[in-house]
Amino acid sequence: MKIETKTAHFSSPLYLESGRILEPYEIAYETYGELNEEKSNVILVCHALSGSHHAAGTYEGDRKPGWWDGLIGDGKAIDTTRYFVICTNVIGSCFGSTGPMSESYPSLEPYRLKFPVVTIKDMIRAQMHLLSDLGIYHVRAVIGGSMGGMQALQFAVDYPNFADDIISLAATYATRPWTIAFNKVAVEAIRRDPRFKHGNYAKDDFKEEGLDGLAVGRIAGHISYLSPDSMDEKFGRNYVSNDGLFELFGRYEVERYMEYNTNNFSTIFDPLSYLYIVKAINTFNLSRGYDSLYDAVSRIKARVHLVSFSSDYLFFPSEMEHIAKMLERNGQEYTYLEVESSYGHDAFLVELDKFDQHIKDVLK
Amino acid sequence: MKIETKTAHFSSPLYLESGRILEPYEIAYETYGELNEEKSNVILVCHALSGSHHAAGTYEGDRKPGWWDGLIGDGKAIDTTRYFVICTNVIGSCFGSTGPMSESYPSLEPYRLKFPVVTIKDMIRAQMHLLSDLGIYHVRAVIGGSMGGMQALQFAVDYPNFADDIISLAATYATRPWTIAFNKVAVEAIRRDPRFKHGNYAKDDFKEEGLDGLAVGRIAGHISYLSPDSMDEKFGRNYVSNDGLFELFGRYEVERYMEYNTNNFSTIFDPLSYLYIVKAINTFNLSRGYDSLYDAVSRIKARVHLVSFSSDYLFFPSEMEHIAKMLERNGQEYTYLEVESSYGHDAFLVELDKFDQHIKDVLK
Repeated sequence: MKIETKTAHFSSPLYLESGRILEPYEIAYETYGELNEEKSNVILVCHALSGSHHAAGTYEGDRKPGWWDGLIGDGKAIDTTRYFVICTNVIGSCFGSTGPMSESYPSLEPYRLKFPVVTIKDMIRAQMHLLSDLGIYHVRAVIGGSMGGMQALQFAVDYPNFADDIISLAATYATRPWTIAFNKVAVEAIRRDPRFKHGNYAKDDFKEEGLDGLAVGRIAGHISYLSPDSMDEKFGRNYVSNDGLFELFGRYEVERYMEYNTNNFSTIFDPLSYLYIVKAINTFNLSRGYDSLYDAVSRIKARVHLVSFSSDYLFFPSEMEHIAKMLERNGQEYTYLEVESSYGHDAFLVELDKFDQHIKDVLK
Repeated sequence: MKIETKTAHFSSPLYLESGRILEPYEIAYETYGELNEEKSNVILVCHALSGSHHAAGTYEGDRKPGWWDGLIGDGKAIDTTRYFVICTNVIGSCFGSTGPMSESYPSLEPYRLKFPVVTIKDMIRAQMHLLSDLGIYHVRAVIGGSMGGMQALQFAVDYPNFADDIISLAATYATRPWTIAFNKVAVEAIRRDPRFKHGNYAKDDFKEEGLDGLAVGRIAGHISYLSPDSMDEKFGRNYVSNDGLFELFGRYEVERYMEYNTNNFSTIFDPLSYLYIVKAINTFNLSRGYDSLYDAVSRIKARVHLVSFSSDYLFFPSEMEHIAKMLERNGQEYTYLEVESSYGHDAFLVELDKFDQHIKDVLK
């Protein structure tokens, strides 16, 4: 299938949870498969912090496919011969949807730090506008992992009649201080980097040499995406070269991995977008706006499918279990699967073979 | 008791594991209690990454006592009415012992990045020289937590006849990539900070305004010293002020804690010392120089007392248990205590009442 980014333009205001308004705004998205006549075969896929709307397929001339390509495609768990799959870039991101480096209409200047704080609730409200625009008022399922899993859960609570099935992987009911602390490394590293210039950098400042603060913050991120055991398996105590032991900057394999992944990332991802999306993750709390988490969860009408990973050190299985317990107590329809994995939080992107059958079953 | 720093000067060379030589060198230390005539009542206390030789008591005019003051003193677990307690500042540190900002004799210039890499083995060899200098060839016990616990274990292996009891808390047999990754945040944050100037900063550059890189790296450190549960208890999801939710830099309590602890630290601790000590922690491997960990451990003649903390996310209880299993298999004398705690790695500094009786019993 040919993969291309589409962009929807909205001149109507997007009312944000903060009380502020985003107007106009754009949403970049991709679709895979064909929409049927009844518009009853839609699956909405939600991406995580560093992801984009490019969830599946490979761009012409590109080598790397989308981030969930193993899951989405013809005959795959999310079968594009049967379903029409949509993935949108979240508001605040830097891959085509309106974010802090977008022009703040009517000025031609980017918003920068004047961009309003967006929340998970805002992200999904924007997606609802896009779907309405496409004439889609109901979807077969919403699915996502990590921040994508937060969005899926928020859809379930905020729009109870919107989806038949909600599939949330490696997420939580409310972001705990543990995760906020990991994000804090990135926030401080970016803020304090002189090249960040309090947000007043030029758009192409980091194309050649990424912002160090973002790279450093991302190292902390990568720690939280792995686990002590997965690092043992992946890297052990090996040095990149033999003389590493007695050289101050002699590197262990794990250090090379961190450098490689983060230096590259900092040339691609916009630091302001990183701050805004991290803020959206930090403020995620399914019970905000409701009397309690129980109250929020009891609004859900969709079947909820919770998937956690045994070695997830960012959002622990106990957090997903907590949601499962509330659904159970309330007699709501749900499934809960804890996948045995040593890949940590990353498992939702890596160990697809451990849960793709489960997703197939849900969508049968 | 009056607390004061003493400094021992050595003109003889310190042969390092790297093959390099440190000459001359100095060791700063403190002592508490009185040495008896037989010199048989010595307890050696080893400090952790950010610690110093100031383990107990309070300096004149100071408010804050030493880092293990709750454990060391008259009538306390390490009873200074019975024992003569010594704590030395490790080689490489910045509190009086020779480190990267010391003059590289005969030049008056600091070593900076030319300072040799030091290891845990080197740190304890230096301490052996100091004790010999004081006419002490055998001690009642060596005790320490975290990097101090590494030193205690290394004493047990390298100098089998040196101590009757080895007490190691919250440590490991070899630093795992998980911990190296946390340290990597600090290494990169410091290296990439322009004010670090590749190590060519002036001695008082950070007295007023600490090095951002060190502060940022220290945030990652503090994450690893706590645990998800301890953060829930300590901070919850509370904001510092009510308007935090929709302000990009509105801070959660956990963020304030991180800022407060790390900004202050970065005005006190030397960034080069931090890099060198972190390197010593990364390279810690009890089996290096021996055929295997089993071979290293089987050399031990002292009674070994291992204390781990259930919520330690830096050095997991399973790591101490691993050492215990080897001692068990080999029929060596040991005790293993896993302390139930939600304080994470920090518990060895904070929850003294949970293990001080155990230490009393060991020293009886």
